[in-house]
Amino acid sequence: MKQWVLGNKGYNRARIGLNGNNFLLANGYMGYRGTLEEYTKIQHTACTLTGIYDQLKGKWREPVNAPNGLFVKVYCNGKPVTVLDSNIKEHTQILDFKSAVHKRRTVLKIDHNEIIITSERFVSLHDLHLMCMRYSVSSLKNCEITIETGIDGDVWDINGPHLKNFSTRFNDNCLVLKAVTNEQKHTIAVVEGIKIKFGKHKINKRKKIITRLIEFEAEAGKEYTFSKYVSVFTTNDNVGDPVEAGFASIQNSLEQGYEKLLENHSNLWHKRWENADIIIDGDKKAQFAIRYSIYHLLAIAPVHSDKISIPARGLSSQVYKGAIFWDTELFMLPFFIYNFPQIARNLVKYRIHSLPGARQKAKEYGYDGAFYAWESQDNGKEACTHFNVIDVFTGRPLRTFYRDKQIHISADVVYGIWEYYKATGDEKILLEGGAEVILECARFYYSFAYFKKDKNRYEILDVTTPDEYHERVNNNPYTNRMIKYTADVAFETLELLKNKYNKVYKNLISKINFRDDIAKIKDLQKNLYISEPLKKTDIIEQFDNYLKLEDIDLKKLKSRIIKPNEYLGGPSGLATTTQIIKQADVILLLNQFKDEYSNQVKKANWEYYEPRTEHGSSLSTSMYSILAAHLRKTDWAYKYFMKTATIDLEGKYKQYVGTLYIGGTHPAANGGTWLAAIFGFAGLSFKNDKPLVNPKLPKKWKSMKFNTQIKGKRYSIEISKSKSKIVSV
Amino acid sequence: MKQWVLGNKGYNRARIGLNGNNFLLANGYMGYRGTLEEYTKIQHTACTLTGIYDQLKGKWREPVNAPNGLFVKVYCNGKPVTVLDSNIKEHTQILDFKSAVHKRRTVLKIDHNEIIITSERFVSLHDLHLMCMRYSVSSLKNCEITIETGIDGDVWDINGPHLKNFSTRFNDNCLVLKAVTNEQKHTIAVVEGIKIKFGKHKINKRKKIITRLIEFEAEAGKEYTFSKYVSVFTTNDNVGDPVEAGFASIQNSLEQGYEKLLENHSNLWHKRWENADIIIDGDKKAQFAIRYSIYHLLAIAPVHSDKISIPARGLSSQVYKGAIFWDTELFMLPFFIYNFPQIARNLVKYRIHSLPGARQKAKEYGYDGAFYAWESQDNGKEACTHFNVIDVFTGRPLRTFYRDKQIHISADVVYGIWEYYKATGDEKILLEGGAEVILECARFYYSFAYFKKDKNRYEILDVTTPDEYHERVNNNPYTNRMIKYTADVAFETLELLKNKYNKVYKNLISKINFRDDIAKIKDLQKNLYISEPLKKTDIIEQFDNYLKLEDIDLKKLKSRIIKPNEYLGGPSGLATTTQIIKQADVILLLNQFKDEYSNQVKKANWEYYEPRTEHGSSLSTSMYSILAAHLRKTDWAYKYFMKTATIDLEGKYKQYVGTLYIGGTHPAANGGTWLAAIFGFAGLSFKNDKPLVNPKLPKKWKSMKFNTQIKGKRYSIEISKSKSKIVSV
Repeated sequence: MKQWVLGNKGYNRARIGLNGNNFLLANGYMGYRGTLEEYTKIQHTACTLTGIYDQLKGKWREPVNAPNGLFVKVYCNGKPVTVLDSNIKEHTQILDFKSAVHKRRTVLKIDHNEIIITSERFVSLHDLHLMCMRYSVSSLKNCEITIETGIDGDVWDINGPHLKNFSTRFNDNCLVLKAVTNEQKHTIAVVEGIKIKFGKHKINKRKKIITRLIEFEAEAGKEYTFSKYVSVFTTNDNVGDPVEAGFASIQNSLEQGYEKLLENHSNLWHKRWENADIIIDGDKKAQFAIRYSIYHLLAIAPVHSDKISIPARGLSSQVYKGAIFWDTELFMLPFFIYNFPQIARNLVKYRIHSLPGARQKAKEYGYDGAFYAWESQDNGKEACTHFNVIDVFTGRPLRTFYRDKQIHISADVVYGIWEYYKATGDEKILLEGGAEVILECARFYYSFAYFKKDKNRYEILDVTTPDEYHERVNNNPYTNRMIKYTADVAFETLELLKNKYNKVYKNLISKINFRDDIAKIKDLQKNLYISEPLKKTDIIEQFDNYLKLEDIDLKKLKSRIIKPNEYLGGPSGLATTTQIIKQADVILLLNQFKDEYSNQVKKANWEYYEPRTEHGSSLSTSMYSILAAHLRKTDWAYKYFMKTATIDLEGKYKQYVGTLYIGGTHPAANGGTWLAAIFGFAGLSFKNDKPLVNPKLPKKWKSMKFNTQIKGKRYSIEISKSKSKIVSV
Repeated sequence: MKQWVLGNKGYNRARIGLNGNNFLLANGYMGYRGTLEEYTKIQHTACTLTGIYDQLKGKWREPVNAPNGLFVKVYCNGKPVTVLDSNIKEHTQILDFKSAVHKRRTVLKIDHNEIIITSERFVSLHDLHLMCMRYSVSSLKNCEITIETGIDGDVWDINGPHLKNFSTRFNDNCLVLKAVTNEQKHTIAVVEGIKIKFGKHKINKRKKIITRLIEFEAEAGKEYTFSKYVSVFTTNDNVGDPVEAGFASIQNSLEQGYEKLLENHSNLWHKRWENADIIIDGDKKAQFAIRYSIYHLLAIAPVHSDKISIPARGLSSQVYKGAIFWDTELFMLPFFIYNFPQIARNLVKYRIHSLPGARQKAKEYGYDGAFYAWESQDNGKEACTHFNVIDVFTGRPLRTFYRDKQIHISADVVYGIWEYYKATGDEKILLEGGAEVILECARFYYSFAYFKKDKNRYEILDVTTPDEYHERVNNNPYTNRMIKYTADVAFETLELLKNKYNKVYKNLISKINFRDDIAKIKDLQKNLYISEPLKKTDIIEQFDNYLKLEDIDLKKLKSRIIKPNEYLGGPSGLATTTQIIKQADVILLLNQFKDEYSNQVKKANWEYYEPRTEHGSSLSTSMYSILAAHLRKTDWAYKYFMKTATIDLEGKYKQYVGTLYIGGTHPAANGGTWLAAIFGFAGLSFKNDKPLVNPKLPKKWKSMKFNTQIKGKRYSIEISKSKSKIVSV
């Protein structure tokens, strides 16, 4: 059982933020941070919604946090009894991630008395608009208890306030708080119902808050328990009046009761785990970390909509503008493709729906085709700004080139579509817009590329690459190879459509006027420069002249840091003029195109880049792990695996870059954990639509067991030291 | 007479540095700063040599300063009597720039007595290795005077010490100080002889210093005068033993005597002025500033060697590494072409001699042909480093791209050759290497250019432009047009050689293997993109997307400055993300190619860029003046003319960028003054090798008179309000 429970004993104020991330509950529609019920925006309580973004003039656009319907605060003889106000005798916080249930138990001392608070809550996977909680109070001695519970609309915002026009109502025994978003005028309605059999009730309304005050004389030792049900609906949900929808939901919940709702929710989670679990024998720590990682991937996956995707910090807050990065396609999507293809389809469709935004961005920069947003929000709108980091020395925003120059994003989108298509055989995705995206991305790259006549080749100039610390470089092998890949996929797509869906093919070519592009993209495909490993050393230079940069080790670089949170990249960061890189770049290339490079080349590059990589991004260590496993550097593979698998658990990741807060969960690292386990240690691959393994298990691992799915067929795979077994299930 | 004398009354310690620049004496072989005789390296006394550079490991390479042979210090009753030690009753410092003679007169108070010091000195134009001085002391009362005079080898160095192995000698009544440069082991020998008829003499030798102590009882009111002669020879001069050469020179000088040597020197200067003077009636301030500017150009011009050129800070010190920039070709060379073609020829030949360095640089960056040094020293060696400015916030060197990206330099070199050739008809310069330089520069640009297939054009990407605050930009019209110009000149050159010197033509094509390049460069010439004025506004965008940058005025930009001497450009300077530019860029284009743009376009761009230009470079205001004159914005033209003409006189120019000292004289501004007077106000042009004028004189100017020379013929030009007269002389 312990393998399924994240537990924290004792209370530590310094961990409020980390616990908020680590104990997150979510269902793809909303995420509720792992904060305690008595917390407010000060402690970063947040119920982050998907699909609704909001922008205040001059500030960053970011997701909206709904009013907090789970607020509860206890008073004893008029004095607040909370972890923030009282002496804490005992405190335990638990996340049961098999069932996605959050629990706490706290014993608080006050006036020679002790108050015991327990709560259990979940964000329903069965009814995505619903959160449920059971809350209990008991007192060691007789005393007068007041419980205040209701909806707190004074929400945490990073670039807010996003909500205005608050209104409160008390109707049919339900609390209602309604507010409207600033930019798109969406109504957010939270309705709360309660099942309670004790106390004298009073409604307390303030501008942004509506609560009940429940007063009673508590008998010593008796537990006073109530359940509450909170619904969140918005005008973005197409349910008519969100308040009415909320009433209906709460009425239904009150009728069904907490136990039944919990059962519905848990059953769905248990079913998920049947697909998704990886069972490790011999390494409890890794087992725990893998499951915890998978939990996070599942919690934030959009099950209900193909118009949203997974932001880089999941649903843990508004960090990074709630934006979708390449993280999704490269690091998370594979998990869904091979376990939950329907969710994978949603993620892919999000990019198809985003095509207009990508076209607009290409046009803005004077290119043809589709240049996907580096930080994508609703409708593919670009959320990335020109100034992303504040210089800690001058307090001025630094001009960075994520938005303008990280052009591999369009190829990453193509990769997502194509990987999904290859594993599922879902040709419909191509007909539903996937083909159009692929062709428009290829077209974008043609218009981006320059031809070098004296070398008779296309080059890809002035780009920012996965590394990110070195902006505006030329001929990054990852970028260039991914562009070639895009062209390859474009021609495979055209071939497929031409042969099987000729009418669709003709319509599409005519609709996007692609006839002349075919020869051009063929030429690009044929003559695109992708730098080769150097003859003497086998090193693949990360970009033109990378090897001429100052060659120092990470320790030396760090010794030059003057101020905490200095941004190491950008226009004049410490890494910029050196060979120190932020994250896997050439190593990523070698993983993505592993059949094209010899082990000798892979080894040389792993060994060259490893000491030069800061791993300043959560996308890095998994790539080093996978390649290390491939090279049978199993100890290294394990070391980097554990780094990616425990990133949130350890909580040692960067919280700030410059003055920018970047805390939150790390779903790309969670996805990277899965990738490293499955494609690294198990060495999973597919041949003729059947799984194959090439195991390189870590020393401790006696066996490894997991399921996978390809072209609609599921397989159970069991690997032990001595043998591997693959069974169709 | 006042029109020929720069004079400073009174003494101001704060002006020591400025006076050192402003009262400079030089003869193209060496420059002697306008410091007082009692000064040492502390006050930046320097005798800067041309043609010898030296580098200490890890430091910047820069010219060598010779030991100071003009050192004199006076003691009265054992106490030093100098402007630094004594009370100053009167002090005057004078530069007579008609004759290039420096004078000072100082009355110093000491112990109820007054000591009067006068001196007169010149750096001989007749004998380039010779400096002469007449020095007098008198006392109001009887007292005991000691004069210490000799050679001070403890020289000022910015990135030194460059001299070592000092040795001193006293021989044949001459002082000798010899030292050896660190890098190339050149011997620098200074020999001093003296003509003196009073006092008891003693030789005083220390490690780096050799002096005479001359003791005598001074009679009240009597003037004690001596003359001294100082020669500087080096092993770079090809004169055999430099000490022997020094002895011979001093012996000869002693024989001829001060008056005769002064006469030889002055005569040569007076003769120069016959060619070079511009006579203004009605504006004494402008008259003075023009002559003063011309003086500086003449003083630092290499008359004796075609292997050196004029550094960006002349011979005023080691600032900017004594390096030659495009300043010479664009801003100084025209003055020499039209007045002293032999000096112009030397300057042009310097670039021809530098071809191997330019080839090496091109190769270093992976290009073909000749990529000239941005900061050129002996043999065309690149002196520009990757890190040129220290960040005032972090104390770290900033990576700048002058060296790598300021590719217009090769075109500027071609421009110099071609302008010289066109004005002189000197075809020999082409046969002596000029043609080879031109072809190699064109070849360089072909290998630099990228072809954009979808637009069917060559583009010039990732360059730094005259502006300099915006590094690594695309398609700068000045750069692109100058590349087209280079191709044009290359084909004119080929045509000329083919027709008139067919054997040379064939040999050259074969020697540099140019046959295949011809078609390529034709293609570049035909299809090179040069951005047009925008349709609605006539603005020529300084580079791709310049107009998308933040559009603020200079005042607002400056209000954002936090620390003095912040570098505004580079990776993250304040100007970098705005439309504020350092200096004329599009305006330079419009001056250089004035026949290709309508007045409407010129006016629109002058008015657009003028308020956005910081004039952070001394190369800027002259260009704004010339174009303003052309547009008959005469008041503006005059305002900017006076800025360039008085830059050194006013001394308000930038002394520091970051922590980098950039003080010194401004020969490009001096040349710009001449350009603005001749090509701006007089509107000089040439048709069929005859001068034409199109005057737009400033209001105050009643008339303007000057000479010019084309294809070996001299003309006297007189412009008044009512008429212009051009006479062949």
